Amino acid sequence: MSDKGYISLAHGNGGSYMRELVDNLFVRYLANPLLDTDADAAHIPISGGDVMITTDGFTVQPLEFPGGTIGSLAVHGTVNDLAVSGAKPLYLCLNAFIEEGFSISLLERIIISLAQAASDAGVRVVTGDTKVVRRGEGGGLYLCMTGVGLRSPEIRLGMKHICAGDALLVSGPVGDHGIAVLLAREQFGLSGTLSSDAGNVYPLAQSLFDFSGLRFMRDPTRGGLGTVAHEISRATGLTVRLNEPSIPVRETVRTVCDMLGYDPMFLACEGRILAVVEASQAESALAIWRNTPGGEGSAWIGHLEQGEPQVIMETELGGMRLLEELGDDPLPRIC
Amino acid sequence: MSDKGYISLAHGNGGSYMRELVDNLFVRYLANPLLDTDADAAHIPISGGDVMITTDGFTVQPLEFPGGTIGSLAVHGTVNDLAVSGAKPLYLCLNAFIEEGFSISLLERIIISLAQAASDAGVRVVTGDTKVVRRGEGGGLYLCMTGVGLRSPEIRLGMKHICAGDALLVSGPVGDHGIAVLLAREQFGLSGTLSSDAGNVYPLAQSLFDFSGLRFMRDPTRGGLGTVAHEISRATGLTVRLNEPSIPVRETVRTVCDMLGYDPMFLACEGRILAVVEASQAESALAIWRNTPGGEGSAWIGHLEQGEPQVIMETELGGMRLLEELGDDPLPRIC
Repeated sequence: MSDKGYISLAHGNGGSYMRELVDNLFVRYLANPLLDTDADAAHIPISGGDVMITTDGFTVQPLEFPGGTIGSLAVHGTVNDLAVSGAKPLYLCLNAFIEEGFSISLLERIIISLAQAASDAGVRVVTGDTKVVRRGEGGGLYLCMTGVGLRSPEIRLGMKHICAGDALLVSGPVGDHGIAVLLAREQFGLSGTLSSDAGNVYPLAQSLFDFSGLRFMRDPTRGGLGTVAHEISRATGLTVRLNEPSIPVRETVRTVCDMLGYDPMFLACEGRILAVVEASQAESALAIWRNTPGGEGSAWIGHLEQGEPQVIMETELGGMRLLEELGDDPLPRIC
Repeated sequence: MSDKGYISLAHGNGGSYMRELVDNLFVRYLANPLLDTDADAAHIPISGGDVMITTDGFTVQPLEFPGGTIGSLAVHGTVNDLAVSGAKPLYLCLNAFIEEGFSISLLERIIISLAQAASDAGVRVVTGDTKVVRRGEGGGLYLCMTGVGLRSPEIRLGMKHICAGDALLVSGPVGDHGIAVLLAREQFGLSGTLSSDAGNVYPLAQSLFDFSGLRFMRDPTRGGLGTVAHEISRATGLTVRLNEPSIPVRETVRTVCDMLGYDPMFLACEGRILAVVEASQAESALAIWRNTPGGEGSAWIGHLEQGEPQVIMETELGGMRLLEELGDDPLPRIC
């Protein structure tokens, strides 16, 4: 290996280089009593509820952006999928696909950020794997994270519980993550101080676990709020009616979207929840969220109604338009 | 999308193209009552033992080879990690990183092969994710598979149970997978009929679960038998003494290794087990394996002894040599 600061193919061959990479970077920062790199599988103590599992790939570019890295994003994305399913996140499994020539110091920063996010969220990485792919076949670094959590058997959440008349709430401004990542690419000659919303939504989700009017939650990541609205409409056969002026969008996000031709409704969030609650309890749910860290900017943004399965947007000027589903519109590597 | 036969960036944006890809390929072949693409996390019914989890990345090139595809390999590699840990494999989570321009018909063949391997092994894919990466940033297709299984609390397996005097067994010829994949690349102008050993080792592992003399099992994948021998030696502080003439290696594998300068000890197997058993019970364990499908070619190949943590190879001519750990020796994308 001519240059010790970069990943070589030998770091992926199962031998001493790989062992040193795993020990010096991954184990160093992620160590906990359940992580045993000598074992083929990890034992995860879990009982007393429904075992929930989720998995996600992460390909965000650039790998570091204001408010996070691909490492912290992988933790938050996985923890959040468990949280909105009603589960307490407990364990993570990490996979890394690393391209030959990748900077080891950048990899270290990413692992540190991942470890910090996991520690803050109270979850432990219990097992993992690394693969090295040849130069030109990798895009730098891809992560894959699987999360396991525990859900109380009393929790009843899901699209099938949604009824006509229910209210739609969002826990904060949408599109911050998507625009923060786009600006960090610097390819548009734009810059700004906008930070990604990427973060752990478990406290916000958990604050509604005992709330009787809660029907469904989702974190609007890839495809954004608009895509979740379409998923709800398709699954329930109901019309989703959104009120554009009520949907919180930061001025920076709106401006950049106007300049580049993006719709903030389809930009990824990585630290927001869209919740469906019984309309009579929407104000109580909002009050809970506004008193929970991360929920200060929450808002009542629309409701469900009988009709065609479609998404209608009520505009600022009192008009209406159909919000079409995202089609052949590439916006890659935001997540 | 100009050409419907290939993956485009729009297949990764969360919208209608992605939904159709997931429904028409992944859900079509992997459908089961637990797989719900409308949910953020899957509920996996599991209780009555230790919950075990494992995760692996798969980057094999070519994606199809004699005896398997990257899809069946991902199932076998994951199931096998659970099996050698003493667990019954139950559930899988699948991640796919697909490069823009990838052939959808090839993807379909891979998913079919994955679904068949999962069905044969009695495991269900309960959740998954797909990401599309830009042309030139992907190497075609990478998979990541996480597996969950259940282990009886009575099973005591692990390197810490290994003692001086114990015997080393292997369940069949080593290196078939590594050489079958190398030959399938056709870059060496060689060809042959050798098939990969890739397969489900759970029946072989399970046949020894109740065997009192069993200490430890591992499937010698990346880094091969030699790397597992080094891992055992390092973890136990004992000398691993291997008897070269006793180690089953097919003639084709030996010939190709001689021509290309590879050592079969470090070639990946994807359907073999290395087991450590109490020496007095080694013959009984071998008898069990030889009566179990897939174990016909099993052999007693060495033992553990007091001494330096090292791996000694007794050669055909009665000599001895140190088997060095794999260092800066790239043999990428076999697994």
